Amino acid sequence: MRRGRRKAKNPEVARRILDSAERHFAAQGMAGARTDEIATDARANKAMLYYYFGDKDHLHRAVLENLFRQLRQNVFGTPDKEKSPREQLFAIALGYFDFLATHPNYPRLVQREAMEAGSNFAWIAREYLRPFHKKMAQTIEAGITSGEIRRVDPDHAAFTVLGSVVSYFAAAPILSEIIGRNLLAPREVAARKVALLDFLDHALTAKGAKGS
Amino acid sequence: MRRGRRKAKNPEVARRILDSAERHFAAQGMAGARTDEIATDARANKAMLYYYFGDKDHLHRAVLENLFRQLRQNVFGTPDKEKSPREQLFAIALGYFDFLATHPNYPRLVQREAMEAGSNFAWIAREYLRPFHKKMAQTIEAGITSGEIRRVDPDHAAFTVLGSVVSYFAAAPILSEIIGRNLLAPREVAARKVALLDFLDHALTAKGAKGS
Repeated sequence: MRRGRRKAKNPEVARRILDSAERHFAAQGMAGARTDEIATDARANKAMLYYYFGDKDHLHRAVLENLFRQLRQNVFGTPDKEKSPREQLFAIALGYFDFLATHPNYPRLVQREAMEAGSNFAWIAREYLRPFHKKMAQTIEAGITSGEIRRVDPDHAAFTVLGSVVSYFAAAPILSEIIGRNLLAPREVAARKVALLDFLDHALTAKGAKGS
Repeated sequence: MRRGRRKAKNPEVARRILDSAERHFAAQGMAGARTDEIATDARANKAMLYYYFGDKDHLHRAVLENLFRQLRQNVFGTPDKEKSPREQLFAIALGYFDFLATHPNYPRLVQREAMEAGSNFAWIAREYLRPFHKKMAQTIEAGITSGEIRRVDPDHAAFTVLGSVVSYFAAAPILSEIIGRNLLAPREVAARKVALLDFLDHALTAKGAKGS
């Protein structure tokens, strides 16, 4: 399958189509979303959509790649060598948190993809999610070696750290209904960040290692 | 909407229909699941399905209620008064873990319900999820008061504890693909339980309080 999108003559329109597609696929899934509605919402037409992205399958793939590439570049990429492993670990957790706070469609798109067991899934796991997990687990291992992180199972600790970051955003509609206020409001997200960092710090930092 | 199911003349058939419906709704969602296929899979017929459960909406509701009632009875019910707040907290976390390990359809059903924003959702939140959350948050508060649990925000700690329990099971298909082995196999689930308890214990137990 062709990857990415055609070099844009009018990148602003391509950008709008991609944003519109992200919202539609998140809300309605791959089967439910309609390219004519995606184009209309983007103030474009179907010809432009097909020109830039090809058919609905390719557009869907472009939406996922756009998000995963941002994650790889901004969160799970080359670590800052001046940071200790523990600092790198919290930089990943915080970077992932900030990504999710600013990309509300992401958890739903990934959940749908996993549920529908789409043909994209093996490729997404291989190219993005497995390297992301490995990065986190290796960072935890390095922290154990350096003495900053207590002895934990690196794979399970990585599951728990990334799971506890994403679960809040994935469940935000449910949790907001439970709590009776919008938990994606900026002050709620800020409070969540403080509480989660405190939780993860106590769960992982070795006794005697520098506090957060 | 009528609640529950008609008093069963043949409870074994009603049980099979409910189990079949749970699998079908989890796999295909409310819109995709078909009552004739649910009946066939249960070795029953549509007349029996309608007799016991009414239409598809009622059957769907019965599936959800069946799961939530089990959770309320076995996990979020009246605590064992002989247990300290910290022991009660870990009993809830472990009970929820065991429920999820034995009810693989649950995370998917709840995710679908929240995504599709079904008419059931406000009712589920009010009658089950809100009391479950409150029980967890109040148990954490009691632990802070008793000195066993360190000072944390009870609502956020409850989100993180329950979220870190459920995220493993909700993401198990993704995580299994990432790791390259089936993470719902009994020995994997057992290892997860040990690792998660250790993580939560360090995150929450006050210094000097009795260890796990």
